Amino acid sequence: MRRLAAREDTDMSNPVVAEVVRGERVESAHRGAGAVVDAGGRIVMAFGDVERPVYSHSAIKALQALPLIESGAADRLGLSEREIALACASHSGEDDHVALASAMLAKAGRDESVLECGAHWPLGEAAARALARAGRKPGPLHNNCSGKHAGFVCLACAVGIDPRGYVAPDHPVQRRVTEAIQDVTGAKLGEETRGVDGCSIPVYAIPLRALAHGFARFATGRGLSPERAKAAARIRAAVARHPAIVAGAGRFDTEVMTVLGARAFTKAGAEGVFCAALPEVGLGLAVKADDGAARAAQVMIAALIRRFCGFDDDLRARLAPFVSTGLTNWNGFEVAVLRPAGPLA
Amino acid sequence: MRRLAAREDTDMSNPVVAEVVRGERVESAHRGAGAVVDAGGRIVMAFGDVERPVYSHSAIKALQALPLIESGAADRLGLSEREIALACASHSGEDDHVALASAMLAKAGRDESVLECGAHWPLGEAAARALARAGRKPGPLHNNCSGKHAGFVCLACAVGIDPRGYVAPDHPVQRRVTEAIQDVTGAKLGEETRGVDGCSIPVYAIPLRALAHGFARFATGRGLSPERAKAAARIRAAVARHPAIVAGAGRFDTEVMTVLGARAFTKAGAEGVFCAALPEVGLGLAVKADDGAARAAQVMIAALIRRFCGFDDDLRARLAPFVSTGLTNWNGFEVAVLRPAGPLA
Repeated sequence: MRRLAAREDTDMSNPVVAEVVRGERVESAHRGAGAVVDAGGRIVMAFGDVERPVYSHSAIKALQALPLIESGAADRLGLSEREIALACASHSGEDDHVALASAMLAKAGRDESVLECGAHWPLGEAAARALARAGRKPGPLHNNCSGKHAGFVCLACAVGIDPRGYVAPDHPVQRRVTEAIQDVTGAKLGEETRGVDGCSIPVYAIPLRALAHGFARFATGRGLSPERAKAAARIRAAVARHPAIVAGAGRFDTEVMTVLGARAFTKAGAEGVFCAALPEVGLGLAVKADDGAARAAQVMIAALIRRFCGFDDDLRARLAPFVSTGLTNWNGFEVAVLRPAGPLA
Repeated sequence: MRRLAAREDTDMSNPVVAEVVRGERVESAHRGAGAVVDAGGRIVMAFGDVERPVYSHSAIKALQALPLIESGAADRLGLSEREIALACASHSGEDDHVALASAMLAKAGRDESVLECGAHWPLGEAAARALARAGRKPGPLHNNCSGKHAGFVCLACAVGIDPRGYVAPDHPVQRRVTEAIQDVTGAKLGEETRGVDGCSIPVYAIPLRALAHGFARFATGRGLSPERAKAAARIRAAVARHPAIVAGAGRFDTEVMTVLGARAFTKAGAEGVFCAALPEVGLGLAVKADDGAARAAQVMIAALIRRFCGFDDDLRARLAPFVSTGLTNWNGFEVAVLRPAGPLA
């Protein structure tokens, strides 16, 4: 890997956006950037550098699932609403998740051997322990991305493409997926913005402004073709009705969408990226913690949702624990607080 | 918790010290501060704010174990070298760790019911899964701090103090521990620098410069009473001979000390704190990642050890994977690199 220029090395000087307070001290501080954009591309709020391209990881799984729907593949194979939600998931590897991924592959006439995501122990600790308790080991179906990968396989099989090698950037599946991301976000995606994601598919670096704009379009359908807008609405509805599928018990996306229903779509990505859509107010949100911390990204996205959601006081109150979170120790005592700071305080 | 002044909220502007590079981009960047100090208190290297007090957490467990040794309690109860190493450990909850903690308590005439650390699933994933596989649940012995707590109980029982309430700041055990930390680091510890740690004992905020100075004294015995210097040497020897006890399979402290033996003592703490001692060159090291990330603290401490260790090329080469670490995806491909940056590049 070539050595990067010094400027690029040290250019992350975004504001402090979240902090851990213990005793009476700020113990740790996270910097980050974020954008809130409407479907017309107008920036409603921005902090930090929102033009620097950041790898979007799993935060854009919902966009990566668009071709599966709009191609007609999902209908041709008779995918259920829960299976569509799983195609957008970073799931915990719970029994439900694994069964759904398996069922998707069966509908495509395949099994888990076609998956190219690799295997890992379930993200959900309870699910991992249950698997261990059963004396079993994880397979590719337990990979948190197995629903997305099953969706890629379904797309390929339903439109008559050989799914093998579907993780490669030049495979027809990835070309369709890349076209969709490019169309929705307006960002130019090419080799120079490409890396490899944890599950082996291409990951593209996209400015937060463009990601937020994309999720405003995803939230509203404005600026998208009618077919794409319909697919977006269908994905949002599927996830809103099945928030337990998109992540898992106790996890941020599941918990927040269980509270907010169709009012908010949220999706975490690796390295502190988070995207969200607020259909009721027509806004898209995208944040990145400089240091890649999931906890910082969660605080940022929760604080922005609270600020821009247009909710009533009851919903705002139910969102509060996600904005400012007590950190408890092993005896259950709250010993520190993680809370928004700087532009989000 | 009262709202802190704005200046204190946003005053962490330490340099970028570690970065994740994916594709050809810096994807994430960690800021931090660090100090390398000799036993006379001379700063050999410093970056970032090394005067700001930071909670030291488990990074100073070796200092917290000093009273157990120098009081004669360890000898009176016949603690083994492995048990002394466990008193300084943030262990993985492996069978060995649990058995040793249990044996320490038995030597004090107690059992796990005396522990006030709380319970959590073993830090070591393999250990957690093994426990689940056996159909069991974790108890306080599995808490990564159980060795330290067992040490506190041993100290109390051996010198005739009731161990109950030993986690409270004004309990005789904590008073002795606080005195030792204060003496070794030269920092003034009081209510205004105190928080509560994850295992419920007091955690004190100490400037990195003082922590590094303390570990230089711990490394050399210089500036300590003869009894304390002897206790420090004994703890270093115990950990050096049993690096698998102080953390666990695959973990940084265990792996690095397995490579370096008595040449380096390293100890991680929560929220991105790390301390180390280099006896051969008489230096103490202390770092803190602003954002609390363990991976950033590891890179910092490994980079500093490599720079100041005085090792031969072979040892430096064996240390290299800890300084610059390939991040592999679920298929085992290296997709990113975590490496030192800025003052540590």
